[in-house]
Amino acid sequence: MFITFEGGEGSGKTTVASLVFERLKNENYDIILTREPGGVKIAEQIRNIILDKENTSLDDRSEALLFAASRRQHLVEKVWPALKENKIVLCDRYIDSSLAYQGGGKHLGVEEVLNVNLFATENTLPDLTILFDLEPKVGLERINKNKNREVNRLDLESLKFYDDVRNTFLDLSKRYKERYVVIDASKPLDEVVLEAYTIIKNKLDGLY
Amino acid sequence: MFITFEGGEGSGKTTVASLVFERLKNENYDIILTREPGGVKIAEQIRNIILDKENTSLDDRSEALLFAASRRQHLVEKVWPALKENKIVLCDRYIDSSLAYQGGGKHLGVEEVLNVNLFATENTLPDLTILFDLEPKVGLERINKNKNREVNRLDLESLKFYDDVRNTFLDLSKRYKERYVVIDASKPLDEVVLEAYTIIKNKLDGLY
Repeated sequence: MFITFEGGEGSGKTTVASLVFERLKNENYDIILTREPGGVKIAEQIRNIILDKENTSLDDRSEALLFAASRRQHLVEKVWPALKENKIVLCDRYIDSSLAYQGGGKHLGVEEVLNVNLFATENTLPDLTILFDLEPKVGLERINKNKNREVNRLDLESLKFYDDVRNTFLDLSKRYKERYVVIDASKPLDEVVLEAYTIIKNKLDGLY
Repeated sequence: MFITFEGGEGSGKTTVASLVFERLKNENYDIILTREPGGVKIAEQIRNIILDKENTSLDDRSEALLFAASRRQHLVEKVWPALKENKIVLCDRYIDSSLAYQGGGKHLGVEEVLNVNLFATENTLPDLTILFDLEPKVGLERINKNKNREVNRLDLESLKFYDDVRNTFLDLSKRYKERYVVIDASKPLDEVVLEAYTIIKNKLDGLY
């Protein structure tokens, strides 16, 4: 079972992922929590190029290709082996982030970025995707409160960009209805966690 | 005018490229000679990941995506600016190498690798491609004579692989007849140089 968490900056999905993961692990589900590059050495080398603040001349399409390469390597070395062992894989961001950020936000086109990513993943789409939907303004305000967070190149994009990202995520949730569930991430954290947990639990109960 | 040189290992294309480049430059053509990553910093960072001998777990599709990303960056930072200034760009290897090596040699499929590369290059194909065709055995024998050459990961592939690469190049020369010229690279170097020079010269004379 391959589950992905998606959403914009400050949507809380990473916090929620870790809390839901702990709860399911305590219930003895065989589950791993990961995110690209996920400790996979080659994927990390690729990510370092993307996030290097000195790489201001990195072109948007190069970036999309690098994300796809990093995704591929993480998939091959970490996600597929876990899925083969029938583990539940909870992944913080996946293909849909590229579709929303590079396809929608940077206007490379959702279809074009999708094609590159279907090549990268050999059509491996998640069984379940939870979208933590939030107004970008609210998300960015949350982030700015947390002053310990390091600002990287991707954070410097404009708010218009984040609106496009959000709208692309919402479009994707309609296009891929069969695997998408949208959560209102403006609600209090404990409610969001419970909602995410319940959605996953129901999905798992259908299987186990 | 965008001209690419393609061919297998030991086909002599790099030597020929440099000799033809010098001759045309002496005739006052406004020409540059380049090859990926071509001194473009980000493209070089990407290439370092591909060529790192320790990266034995690098997946073939990741590799194809990294080549495409490196190609994109080289195109954006070096090839397109030169073409915009009406320079002649002579490039040692380009898209067709990915089609032949990753698409054909590693069996990822020519169409699939082409799609990724058309995304990377926004459909920028060369005006002229010279294929230096040679039996892989002959090419590898030539290389082994040159003991100063550093062996990298890509050199360690089998001869069957190089046969597939060659056949894919030949298929491409039929598919893209309008831009392809095939040279028999088993002939003596001075003959090959003259032939490549004459082909380019004729192409340029049609333009200038």
